[in-house]
Amino acid sequence: MSAQVIDGRACARALKASVAADIELLKEERLPIGLATVMVGDAYGSVAYERRLRRLAADLGVPYLPRRLPATVSQAELDDTIAELNAAPDVSGILVLRPLPPHLSEAVTFQAIHPAKDIEAVHPQNAGLLALGVPRYVPSTAASAYHLLDTWLDSVGEDRADFYHRSLIVVVGRSNNVGKPAVSLGYDRQAAVESIDEWASHTGTLGRHTRRADVLIVAAGRPGLIRAEHVNDHAVVIDVGINPRTGPDGVTHMVGDVDHATVAPRVRALTPVPGGVGPVTDVWLLRNTAAAARVNSARLLSSQEPS
Amino acid sequence: MSAQVIDGRACARALKASVAADIELLKEERLPIGLATVMVGDAYGSVAYERRLRRLAADLGVPYLPRRLPATVSQAELDDTIAELNAAPDVSGILVLRPLPPHLSEAVTFQAIHPAKDIEAVHPQNAGLLALGVPRYVPSTAASAYHLLDTWLDSVGEDRADFYHRSLIVVVGRSNNVGKPAVSLGYDRQAAVESIDEWASHTGTLGRHTRRADVLIVAAGRPGLIRAEHVNDHAVVIDVGINPRTGPDGVTHMVGDVDHATVAPRVRALTPVPGGVGPVTDVWLLRNTAAAARVNSARLLSSQEPS
Repeated sequence: MSAQVIDGRACARALKASVAADIELLKEERLPIGLATVMVGDAYGSVAYERRLRRLAADLGVPYLPRRLPATVSQAELDDTIAELNAAPDVSGILVLRPLPPHLSEAVTFQAIHPAKDIEAVHPQNAGLLALGVPRYVPSTAASAYHLLDTWLDSVGEDRADFYHRSLIVVVGRSNNVGKPAVSLGYDRQAAVESIDEWASHTGTLGRHTRRADVLIVAAGRPGLIRAEHVNDHAVVIDVGINPRTGPDGVTHMVGDVDHATVAPRVRALTPVPGGVGPVTDVWLLRNTAAAARVNSARLLSSQEPS
Repeated sequence: MSAQVIDGRACARALKASVAADIELLKEERLPIGLATVMVGDAYGSVAYERRLRRLAADLGVPYLPRRLPATVSQAELDDTIAELNAAPDVSGILVLRPLPPHLSEAVTFQAIHPAKDIEAVHPQNAGLLALGVPRYVPSTAASAYHLLDTWLDSVGEDRADFYHRSLIVVVGRSNNVGKPAVSLGYDRQAAVESIDEWASHTGTLGRHTRRADVLIVAAGRPGLIRAEHVNDHAVVIDVGINPRTGPDGVTHMVGDVDHATVAPRVRALTPVPGGVGPVTDVWLLRNTAAAARVNSARLLSSQEPS
């Protein structure tokens, strides 16, 4: 028997309809919404991401400001660009695309983003609110992994709370932007959560951990890391990996961290790559951009109050 | 065979000597160091903690400013007290003692502390830096749990990196002040880390998780939660629980979250209560107070620079 393949595109379409409705409300209330991205250089993944966001923002009627800076830009020039976007009243959300060239500091750059516009929660203040269980924004990839899970549970008639309370969620990969937030979101659902990193595969113990997972979230950035021997037959597998791979024909396509061909026959359900987490993540970023319109509006209102 | 009992008092004495040396250096450099605590009301645990800190600060020659406010204090009055301490040049570190009365907001109170003086990392910015793996301050209880582990590993001749890389650390309890930071510190050591909360005992699955632990850190605040059937024979158990229990003689003493009598005969090593994590935690807070003297000094220097 083969696993259910969880359809990320269908999930993204439904989410997009709800975000579109929210954006209509914002327009009626005349709250400014706008997405700005900052790309330094022209990494393959960033260019593709920018193109997808451009199309999605146009579909949803959200003004999109894609700022591109040369790979040689200085930290001060990058910070100035972010400061302009912080001050722009028609920009509600700012995303700095990864990777940055090595001469630029992610930490410095992320701290330059105004926390109210920091829709990926990369500023320490927002990372802290997420860690403390009271997020202002939930980073889009981790949020999408759980949105897919929640939606899938509904579709098979499982009670979400029941499922999470008796489940062990194993998160492979421990990045600040995906793995760690995915652990925090598991806390919110009162699941047991295990986090493992690179070392588990170096020490040959990966399977010892992943085979126990009721839910396996893989965000290691290593193509095909998870194979048949790493999973059990009731696992629900969420593949966050998006790794460009160029075939012998010279065409580049995306593959996940999960070896779909050998894993799919063994597990209960899994997400494909492409067409899994990716499409939902794109929409979630626009959802956060809409949420940011309200956060910014509340901020500006409160700063007009007499002190 | 009975487990090794890890001696927290000896560990605290050694740490205290190193903190004392650091404080001597601060004095030579004329950097102001001072600890302020804010207690609202007079909870049993807070009064005891304040008394221990007073004695320790005196031993180390650190000025100690214990502020006490009545249980009826308003949020605004509490915030004003914290603002005064933020501005006081002779106060390097501020600790707000828990619990606060229910009419006061921990979140509002913690955000009022200047991040440079927030030695327990309760402000979202400091919680975020910890979550992102670049802590300004490490909260004292979680830090002490790992300091005891590290010291114990050294004492038995185990290589720390080897040990952590092949270990699963299971953290029971998911509080913002202990459980979550303990997970983050496990990340830093590149161990596999599992976090479980209350639900595991409600659903009867506690032992399924805890029995796999190479290191078991228990911070649930539930006396005797961990019993013999919850541990394996190679586990190293760190008991963070400090629960007041009044005996039939009317005398109140502290008991841990681990049922020492039944667990000690089964595991490799464990910390007692009292005399385990507690004494190290007290010294760690003074260590952070000393570190804060340098953080504040750097901050004041940089704010004097021409902008």
